[in-house]
Amino acid sequence: MELLKKRIIEDGVVKPGKVLKVDSFLNHQMDVALFQEMAREWKRRFADADINKIMTIEASGIGIAAVVAAEFGLPVVFAKKAHSINLDGSVYTSKIHSYTHQRDYDVIVSKKYIGKTDRVLIIDDFLANGCAMDGLVEICEQAGAEVVGIGIAIEKGFQQGGAELRARGLRVDSLAIIESMDDQTGEISFR
Amino acid sequence: MELLKKRIIEDGVVKPGKVLKVDSFLNHQMDVALFQEMAREWKRRFADADINKIMTIEASGIGIAAVVAAEFGLPVVFAKKAHSINLDGSVYTSKIHSYTHQRDYDVIVSKKYIGKTDRVLIIDDFLANGCAMDGLVEICEQAGAEVVGIGIAIEKGFQQGGAELRARGLRVDSLAIIESMDDQTGEISFR
Repeated sequence: MELLKKRIIEDGVVKPGKVLKVDSFLNHQMDVALFQEMAREWKRRFADADINKIMTIEASGIGIAAVVAAEFGLPVVFAKKAHSINLDGSVYTSKIHSYTHQRDYDVIVSKKYIGKTDRVLIIDDFLANGCAMDGLVEICEQAGAEVVGIGIAIEKGFQQGGAELRARGLRVDSLAIIESMDDQTGEISFR
Repeated sequence: MELLKKRIIEDGVVKPGKVLKVDSFLNHQMDVALFQEMAREWKRRFADADINKIMTIEASGIGIAAVVAAEFGLPVVFAKKAHSINLDGSVYTSKIHSYTHQRDYDVIVSKKYIGKTDRVLIIDDFLANGCAMDGLVEICEQAGAEVVGIGIAIEKGFQQGGAELRARGLRVDSLAIIESMDDQTGEISFR
């Protein structure tokens, strides 16, 4: 999606350790007008997919997913990290490793909000090694729900997450796939 | 707001310890069509307020705030809990006590995304003791930004947060204020 790529070039900052900072518009400050354009793009791309639920994971996926859900006219369910005493015991759960925070954590979705009749579009801001996405797909599998698509804002194409998910037959649709980036020059190239 | 109160009566569940579970539509599964109605209501109520930025706190405020931001045509910034290595050092910070999770944590907002020229509407799903809101207001004060309003979906009117914020002269606009609730009968009454 050209609008997003242009924005990444303009406002993204490449940091050492293959980190791309896009917190001016994607995952700290959020440019919701951009999210609306992204949502319309996914609506076009998944027009045939007969989706009935949007899923994401806290925290930075929630804003994009909410705007996507508004565009599709569907509810969202977001997977929660670790246990909250406000949730009943009856949950699907998966363990995820976060490279950003260097730790494992559990993600949970209440059994009430995902089930056999659901055709799910998973939305997230980033796809890199794919750990978070594996966890969400696993939760859908536990629930008997079908993952009809995975919509990613920015995929780090030089990490293995996207390739592995596609190799499993999942339909991964990333609006911008980064082929390489250089923290010395700041250069970013797209696939 | 009658639509929200009706939904709380229909789908909210009162649990021991003054807990109101609304995770079927507000903070786990999210009814984004309802959020859009809530956003329109706040747009009407804050029509005079000359807001230029929406602020919230992760995680469950983000979905509502994103939909509100879409309605207002404004960006959102969400305060992050604890430190992420993806953020630069230059942040405003405040310490918050969570009664839900029984611990203190730091919330941060990058100095790049809040400043002296900002007129902020803070949005959150719940207001009870007000700890999270105090933290967000403190961050705005550090930044020299003006908090022109606080929009809350559900205020627990029997806890002190709302009264204390209003006593400080802050404009708190809660769409549903719960006067009392009973986990034996399930009864909920509104102010």
